[in-house]
Amino acid sequence: MSKVLVIHGPNLNLLGTREEDIYGTATLDDINGQLKTLADNAGVEIEFFQSNHEGEIVDKIGAAKENFSAILINPAAYTHTSVAIRDAIAAVQIPTIEVHLSNVYAREEFRHTSLIAPVAHGQISGFGVDSYLLGLQATINLIKG
Amino acid sequence: MSKVLVIHGPNLNLLGTREEDIYGTATLDDINGQLKTLADNAGVEIEFFQSNHEGEIVDKIGAAKENFSAILINPAAYTHTSVAIRDAIAAVQIPTIEVHLSNVYAREEFRHTSLIAPVAHGQISGFGVDSYLLGLQATINLIKG
Amino acid sequence: MSKVLVIHGPNLNLLGTREEDIYGTATLDDINGQLKTLADNAGVEIEFFQSNHEGEIVDKIGAAKENFSAILINPAAYTHTSVAIRDAIAAVQIPTIEVHLSNVYAREEFRHTSLIAPVAHGQISGFGVDSYLLGLQATINLIKG
Amino acid sequence: MSKVLVIHGPNLNLLGTREEDIYGTATLDDINGQLKTLADNAGVEIEFFQSNHEGEIVDKIGAAKENFSAILINPAAYTHTSVAIRDAIAAVQIPTIEVHLSNVYAREEFRHTSLIAPVAHGQISGFGVDSYLLGLQATINLIKG
Amino acid sequence: MSKVLVIHGPNLNLLGTREEDIYGTATLDDINGQLKTLADNAGVEIEFFQSNHEGEIVDKIGAAKENFSAILINPAAYTHTSVAIRDAIAAVQIPTIEVHLSNVYAREEFRHTSLIAPVAHGQISGFGVDSYLLGLQATINLIKG
Amino acid sequence: MSKVLVIHGPNLNLLGTREEDIYGTATLDDINGQLKTLADNAGVEIEFFQSNHEGEIVDKIGAAKENFSAILINPAAYTHTSVAIRDAIAAVQIPTIEVHLSNVYAREEFRHTSLIAPVAHGQISGFGVDSYLLGLQATINLIKG
Amino acid sequence: MSKVLVIHGPNLNLLGTREEDIYGTATLDDINGQLKTLADNAGVEIEFFQSNHEGEIVDKIGAAKENFSAILINPAAYTHTSVAIRDAIAAVQIPTIEVHLSNVYAREEFRHTSLIAPVAHGQISGFGVDSYLLGLQATINLIKG
Amino acid sequence: MSKVLVIHGPNLNLLGTREEDIYGTATLDDINGQLKTLADNAGVEIEFFQSNHEGEIVDKIGAAKENFSAILINPAAYTHTSVAIRDAIAAVQIPTIEVHLSNVYAREEFRHTSLIAPVAHGQISGFGVDSYLLGLQATINLIKG
Amino acid sequence: MSKVLVIHGPNLNLLGTREEDIYGTATLDDINGQLKTLADNAGVEIEFFQSNHEGEIVDKIGAAKENFSAILINPAAYTHTSVAIRDAIAAVQIPTIEVHLSNVYAREEFRHTSLIAPVAHGQISGFGVDSYLLGLQATINLIKG
Amino acid sequence: MSKVLVIHGPNLNLLGTREEDIYGTATLDDINGQLKTLADNAGVEIEFFQSNHEGEIVDKIGAAKENFSAILINPAAYTHTSVAIRDAIAAVQIPTIEVHLSNVYAREEFRHTSLIAPVAHGQISGFGVDSYLLGLQATINLIKG
Amino acid sequence: MSKVLVIHGPNLNLLGTREEDIYGTATLDDINGQLKTLADNAGVEIEFFQSNHEGEIVDKIGAAKENFSAILINPAAYTHTSVAIRDAIAAVQIPTIEVHLSNVYAREEFRHTSLIAPVAHGQISGFGVDSYLLGLQATINLIKG
Amino acid sequence: MSKVLVIHGPNLNLLGTREEDIYGTATLDDINGQLKTLADNAGVEIEFFQSNHEGEIVDKIGAAKENFSAILINPAAYTHTSVAIRDAIAAVQIPTIEVHLSNVYAREEFRHTSLIAPVAHGQISGFGVDSYLLGLQATINLIKG
Repeated sequence: MSKVLVIHGPNLNLLGTREEDIYGTATLDDINGQLKTLADNAGVEIEFFQSNHEGEIVDKIGAAKENFSAILINPAAYTHTSVAIRDAIAAVQIPTIEVHLSNVYAREEFRHTSLIAPVAHGQISGFGVDSYLLGLQATINLIKG
Repeated sequence: MSKVLVIHGPNLNLLGTREEDIYGTATLDDINGQLKTLADNAGVEIEFFQSNHEGEIVDKIGAAKENFSAILINPAAYTHTSVAIRDAIAAVQIPTIEVHLSNVYAREEFRHTSLIAPVAHGQISGFGVDSYLLGLQATINLIKG
Repeated sequence: MSKVLVIHGPNLNLLGTREEDIYGTATLDDINGQLKTLADNAGVEIEFFQSNHEGEIVDKIGAAKENFSAILINPAAYTHTSVAIRDAIAAVQIPTIEVHLSNVYAREEFRHTSLIAPVAHGQISGFGVDSYLLGLQATINLIKG
Repeated sequence: MSKVLVIHGPNLNLLGTREEDIYGTATLDDINGQLKTLADNAGVEIEFFQSNHEGEIVDKIGAAKENFSAILINPAAYTHTSVAIRDAIAAVQIPTIEVHLSNVYAREEFRHTSLIAPVAHGQISGFGVDSYLLGLQATINLIKG
Repeated sequence: MSKVLVIHGPNLNLLGTREEDIYGTATLDDINGQLKTLADNAGVEIEFFQSNHEGEIVDKIGAAKENFSAILINPAAYTHTSVAIRDAIAAVQIPTIEVHLSNVYAREEFRHTSLIAPVAHGQISGFGVDSYLLGLQATINLIKG
Repeated sequence: MSKVLVIHGPNLNLLGTREEDIYGTATLDDINGQLKTLADNAGVEIEFFQSNHEGEIVDKIGAAKENFSAILINPAAYTHTSVAIRDAIAAVQIPTIEVHLSNVYAREEFRHTSLIAPVAHGQISGFGVDSYLLGLQATINLIKG
Repeated sequence: MSKVLVIHGPNLNLLGTREEDIYGTATLDDINGQLKTLADNAGVEIEFFQSNHEGEIVDKIGAAKENFSAILINPAAYTHTSVAIRDAIAAVQIPTIEVHLSNVYAREEFRHTSLIAPVAHGQISGFGVDSYLLGLQATINLIKG
Repeated sequence: MSKVLVIHGPNLNLLGTREEDIYGTATLDDINGQLKTLADNAGVEIEFFQSNHEGEIVDKIGAAKENFSAILINPAAYTHTSVAIRDAIAAVQIPTIEVHLSNVYAREEFRHTSLIAPVAHGQISGFGVDSYLLGLQATINLIKG
Repeated sequence: MSKVLVIHGPNLNLLGTREEDIYGTATLDDINGQLKTLADNAGVEIEFFQSNHEGEIVDKIGAAKENFSAILINPAAYTHTSVAIRDAIAAVQIPTIEVHLSNVYAREEFRHTSLIAPVAHGQISGFGVDSYLLGLQATINLIKG
Repeated sequence: MSKVLVIHGPNLNLLGTREEDIYGTATLDDINGQLKTLADNAGVEIEFFQSNHEGEIVDKIGAAKENFSAILINPAAYTHTSVAIRDAIAAVQIPTIEVHLSNVYAREEFRHTSLIAPVAHGQISGFGVDSYLLGLQATINLIKG
Repeated sequence: MSKVLVIHGPNLNLLGTREEDIYGTATLDDINGQLKTLADNAGVEIEFFQSNHEGEIVDKIGAAKENFSAILINPAAYTHTSVAIRDAIAAVQIPTIEVHLSNVYAREEFRHTSLIAPVAHGQISGFGVDSYLLGLQATINLIKG
Repeated sequence: MSKVLVIHGPNLNLLGTREEDIYGTATLDDINGQLKTLADNAGVEIEFFQSNHEGEIVDKIGAAKENFSAILINPAAYTHTSVAIRDAIAAVQIPTIEVHLSNVYAREEFRHTSLIAPVAHGQISGFGVDSYLLGLQATINLIKG
């Protein structure tokens, strides 16, 4: 049975309580709940991981090789600054889908560049919680396809 | 009943016959067929439009206001060069979803910048035909949400 | 008797219906009406042309040499992207006045650069409909001076 | 009764005697005379001020709030270097029209950037003395509109 | 029997009447006549196409695959702005030779960058009408070699 | 009673032992002692936190919302590289004062850009230990004002 | 007895009347009054100087060597454009503190670079009137330390 | 007796299992074994540390002052993004040798800039495991010289 | 009788033995032989010169004025770095044709800029040995025309 | 009899008292004395002008046309920031020699660009007082030649 | 028996007599002596070549193919400017090790870019004479491995 | 007795015969003759050296230490490209004066940057032959001062 690792990057633990005009009112638990339902329906296992630590995310990806068929990641702030996460994804060679709640291309200039995208399979941004759900659907399709 | 306008930008008429390692083997008709099925299932009308002409795409978007609830666009080459299409989208203020077959961020530098993204609702890239299907799903959710 | 060609670039067909905080409520017909009155009063012929197609604008300018004494153009989005229109103006060597409804220098960075300005006689921006009227007045002065 | 402040920036006292191929043969007095006539005809008061000193221009604008309805300024060389004049215009919030005798966009690269334009109401360049007259007409329209 | 498609980009319909110091006095018909003679002598078919429309050029290239062995193109202004034409050339994978009448590297900075060159087989610039003739010779050699 | 969170970024645990010509001879305990006295005198609670880990600083800020009225932060090296800390500050919307011991603008080019400053209330740099004390005074004024 | 020179740069004479959302409602006299009180309490002489003229500020700094122990300067617009004021500060080698009412790093890009900061002792920005008071406190500490 | 601290940066725990065409087949234990042998032969103590956490590497360097004569570091991804590690090295002033398995200058543009190199004693890149062995030899020479 | 100087720049002595996928299998002697035949047929004298030394190429061009009607040069690596060769060509004012075996615009970024092109008559690149032959044909046409 | 105008820019009134390692110990009077002697010996009149005010320097140059044959100017800080002085020199078209005491090219990056140099006859920098004397000699040669 | 070519670039003939704080006191003969000893011990032949001439270095590399197994090169100043040496190395495809006496990354900005590194096997910098010895050891390992 | 080495860079052997509007009609022998006279009058020995070869100029400077008190150099094209000549000057530490016939700052952008100037004592440009004579006078003053 396939298993998907969902990684939530820095500050996503604050979801639903922070800048609601940008990120919406759903909490991380809300999102994970919806993802779980979608995964269950598709007959796919799913595991959630949130960390504000670049290093922990690198650790998690590095250890993923044995157990996961794909990664769904919202790298948040590390999207724009982390070569380490990029290298981890390239190293384990597990298909990785990058998602963003907000449309990063409509925000500050420095958010227009993703260090992760060139090593990701695909990228989805701007749909709020739907970015995650569409991303998981894409992941499931990828695993099954 | 809601109606979605699907716009395919330049050279997408060649799909399935060109650079298959980048764009896959599905033809435009194949894609439109899959999109039609998804729209039918969701009870949403859908119309398809392909053009290699920036001006025709601008015409089409400008005329969309009366008839369409949302636009799903793969601007292809015009993603990176067309202020006119960007201005058309901003002018009609119909929610617009931007999709790309390939992962543009893993290709040439000039493909990393989208003039369309800052005025789009969201962007999906890298999933091949699935980029369209996920994009249409996002569009349907948006209309219904 | 002198004749002026007025060219309205992409999306200007939508005037009065789009982003009214930026572009105002006058329609293109309103503007053309006011320009016609001013031209009539000055004893100058005037012809109007709107297109969303870069190529059609190039065609029009290329064919203008025989019939027109001057061109009044609002290149809109093509201001920032069209070398072809620039080359057409340089080729026919008819005095050309560039106008913009909005103050392009107070908007996005990419709107601060005009490919047209270096080959134009002069440029007027930021006065709404008045940009056109002042531009036509400048054009008439130029023809008569 | 409305009053317009006309500010001539550095080196404009030399008009008519300097680089005539770029700036024409009219002296500053000639220009002021034509502007006075236009203002008189429109029933608008007008005052002229020329200075080569950035600080004096800043002083003048800062003191303008009580007495003037609008400013017509040719910032000349300070167009490209003076944040202080920009800040003065932003501070007094009197509508300000920026004019240039020559087409600055057809000259050296550094003349293509105006620090003033983003805080100006509109900009007119390239029409010689007519830049001033069109600018004053725009100013009068603005006051009356 | 091999067939070559010759594409003349925007404003080239004005040849012989525009900026003669840069582009010379030969008209497009003159050039086509000389190219025809050269093709005939080499026993190669040739077809001519001129358009000011980026989209028409994209259409033409996209449709070329069935009928042509090679393309000889002077993209003119679109050299510097058209990703769509570049993508069309890459899509059909017909060997394409890029030519320019003038030495683009001795002109404005923005003419030094060609979006077409990286997907072209080779580039010839600066020889006036000879650029075309040398380009056709190169094309014939390529077809025959 | 109000409470201020003081965050010392990476390598500040080494203060007093490292590059004394740049950072002075006071240890972190010395600085905290002086800050404590100032806070006591102002009747404000204060808590100190030092970490070399970007993630821990993000955690700390994210958890601060319930307990703190303001943050005084010396982001040190993370000033120039951490979007995650910037996002954390923006997320919790607690007024944040940024301080630096050295005059960062007189050092290497890359130290001239702060990712934190745009979301901070204000910034103080160059006064050694006094940067902290002035920063705390500013913080107290802010809380009380 | 020590003496501090306070220099207010261009447009600061308009304080309290201009863009109050950015600069607050205190007038320059209000600020000077608060600074005087603080200086008196510390037993330090203080002199105030405001000018919109770069040259006058350079004059004032150049003449300061004999009479002042330190300079507190808000260079305002000249922060970003005046090499002359920078050179004057470097020439007289009197410790100089740079202050800004607003958080310049949260405003336009061109306000992020200070030509003054590299030759200043330290910089304080973003605290409104408090920037001056903190700056004077820093100055007094410096003189006495 | 001298002691060398060997620091392996992010993702190096995956060595031998990741992108073998770039990084080779030796595991980290293999490398450490070879380094231990070389150190033993030279009569130098050696300690190994691997972490994916920037903060832990900063902690380790900060604590190194008492116990180590030199540091041999492969900063991996942090080479290009970590000011904190740079500052730690500069703070402790222990001679530091930077090594890279691959030739970073033959890879992506962003890998051509090292934030570490300016504070390192020297840099070795491109020799695979030999980069470490040569680096340790250089370190030993430095300690003994 | 006219005489053409053919200059082969650095490393072209290695032709046929180096990177054959980029430069082909013809040796320099092969190329010179083909050029000789073409020159003979056209009744034009030809002289060959190869050097890896920038200075020798400058010497050769400087001395060419008396004896040569035109220069055909493949500046190879010096294309991108030699102001001295550019100045030599400008100094002697002999028409100079620049050729490249490979399509330099499809290679590394630094090969896209030619210091020679702005002073050359025209440029041909990408046709392998044919670049030379077409270049010589262009040269002969130029001499005879 | 010819007359030379010597203009000393901002902060040069402080010469001999400021940063002596860069600017030497000679005062402005010393320099003027040496220049006077040289002018007297050459039978040329000379007048000295020092100002810290950009506007006064512009005034002075603008008024120079009637009375002076040449200008010798050390624009100091205004070298790098004053378009107004550049325009004044271009306007009066009096031959102007630019001198600098220090070698500006061995100092901060922003001192490497001179706005004055492109309109000056020549430039001399780095020789201390000798820069002025050589500059005056060049001026005299120019007048007499 | 293998043979290594050691190339010393421009100004290295002056070693031991120039800028000793940067380059140390060893002469080129000293270095060559140490390299010879190391080569002898490893049973490898070695040849030394020093030249200040870019062309001679290109000649030498081009001729190396027959006789050498590897090249050890300190390109010195040509590191940053010579495309010709880069192309020579790429052409002969002999493994090449790049060494630098000083840590080029701690010096002027323009020394941070090496045109040679992307075609070299590896790079060693900053260890003085040891850079050469480590480089030769790496070369020997490479030959033997 | 002091001795000055005069170095003429590439293409200066062509003086008097090339681009006379830029470089004048004097030949190199004319210039050397005038320099010789000036040196004789000052009781200073002088030696002339012209080369088009960067390497020969580096050789000459490297060998100058024993025999020359100063160098007067017109690096011509190598001004903008030669790190090797810069390093040679820095290595021998003989005071070096840089001269240019033309005003390089009024020419192409790439001529505005001198790699030599930061290591030169001073620079003189724009005075034609007088640049050399003033440069030699400066050199003599330097030797004698």
